[in-house]
Amino acid sequence: MTVANKIQASFDAQTMMKTLGARLIYVANGECEITAPLLPGSLQQNGFGHAALTFAIGDSAAGYAALSVMPEDCEVLTSEIKINLLSPAKGDLLIARGKVVKPGRRLVVVTSEVFARTGGEEKQIALMQGTMVPVQS
Amino acid sequence: MTVANKIQASFDAQTMMKTLGARLIYVANGECEITAPLLPGSLQQNGFGHAALTFAIGDSAAGYAALSVMPEDCEVLTSEIKINLLSPAKGDLLIARGKVVKPGRRLVVVTSEVFARTGGEEKQIALMQGTMVPVQS
Amino acid sequence: MTVANKIQASFDAQTMMKTLGARLIYVANGECEITAPLLPGSLQQNGFGHAALTFAIGDSAAGYAALSVMPEDCEVLTSEIKINLLSPAKGDLLIARGKVVKPGRRLVVVTSEVFARTGGEEKQIALMQGTMVPVQS
Amino acid sequence: MTVANKIQASFDAQTMMKTLGARLIYVANGECEITAPLLPGSLQQNGFGHAALTFAIGDSAAGYAALSVMPEDCEVLTSEIKINLLSPAKGDLLIARGKVVKPGRRLVVVTSEVFARTGGEEKQIALMQGTMVPVQS
Repeated sequence: MTVANKIQASFDAQTMMKTLGARLIYVANGECEITAPLLPGSLQQNGFGHAALTFAIGDSAAGYAALSVMPEDCEVLTSEIKINLLSPAKGDLLIARGKVVKPGRRLVVVTSEVFARTGGEEKQIALMQGTMVPVQS
Repeated sequence: MTVANKIQASFDAQTMMKTLGARLIYVANGECEITAPLLPGSLQQNGFGHAALTFAIGDSAAGYAALSVMPEDCEVLTSEIKINLLSPAKGDLLIARGKVVKPGRRLVVVTSEVFARTGGEEKQIALMQGTMVPVQS
Repeated sequence: MTVANKIQASFDAQTMMKTLGARLIYVANGECEITAPLLPGSLQQNGFGHAALTFAIGDSAAGYAALSVMPEDCEVLTSEIKINLLSPAKGDLLIARGKVVKPGRRLVVVTSEVFARTGGEEKQIALMQGTMVPVQS
Repeated sequence: MTVANKIQASFDAQTMMKTLGARLIYVANGECEITAPLLPGSLQQNGFGHAALTFAIGDSAAGYAALSVMPEDCEVLTSEIKINLLSPAKGDLLIARGKVVKPGRRLVVVTSEVFARTGGEEKQIALMQGTMVPVQS
């Protein structure tokens, strides 16, 4: 099983990703992209995307970016992550782009940027910085 | 409309809370408690509660704790929040307890602790620290 | 060498602590207290204590709190830590109190609260939340 | 007084920057660079640069990056900032590069990267993400 297949299988096993309508678009070499629509059940009180939706795809994109640079028999857990919310989550689609900043045997430092796409335009709505931990699967 | 009613109405308007089965248990005087079950659609790849579920109720509990000490015509937005995940989210129910650390006219600093209850026992699964911002509603 | 002696020796080896006038007051069982005066060379542009002073003693108190619950042959490194600044650092003395939230073989989650003492009164000026990592010494 | 002069004056008024031997190299248009040597009085217990040194210049670089995009009558305070430490602070010189991610009237979201230079090589030792708040001066 390739790393990409392993990660797709892990993604598919996350029922939360299905609930949110999230899709794994790309993962390789320390980078990952995940998208999600603004489903009627994913909103906050003003009708914008909920911070938990932004967090969900940003955290997963960061985690799978990390997993793509780990040994094959590993899984990844979020140890900690911080999110700064920049703008309301509104538009046609949310796009999270995770990236490895510093790989490591014990800790992998990651960032994730989340954007809202409206028509052909993207606007950044969140920035995340965190630590992923490899665990034996 | 009392503050408690205003906050309940805001909570009810968050479709994400309904999707996750979350319930607002208590809110007053800078404290808030929100619970959520581990629904089949809220899980990560190992069958535990997804970090986004833990984040969702922890962030909301912190936000409503903050809103309970703000002027009546305000709403609250999460500016930033950090989560340290301590243990897997497994058990009968997740319980988030948000608390105001420092109220303020422009910024409210908050914490949130999230627990997993199994039978009569509670185990802490996450600790959050963040900043809420009042906005005119 | 007792754990307290080992930690005192580590503290004394930190020249930054001497530069800032910091003192190790107490460390045991996952808790640590460190104080520092507002030296003329530790200030920011308005004459208050610099955020780096608050950070320095808060981070060290959290780190030594963690070290007090680790095996004897370990040292501790800060992996990551977040600080929310609550009030200006002014008064007679700054006091940092670190605490272990979740011990662990690979990661220790910690918090630290920093206070400014003026006469007999203490006011909280910062809250920190982070992760310490044991390393073989 | 130009913005650059105002920021240099603010920097010069920070006695902590002098204690640490820090220098303001560049500030304009939402970017700022600050350097510091590894002075004998700025070290941790293993003889590397102290995390508080890394924090001090990273936080200041982020703060002045923010100040460079604010109205002229403002000062800036750090509301919160998180640091992930990536590698030991060793080498000839530390270099912090702060950057505005999202300007705003009430909050400015910033990042800062800190590098250690040895000979002609730079290695990243820290990544920071935080929030600066404008205050009337």
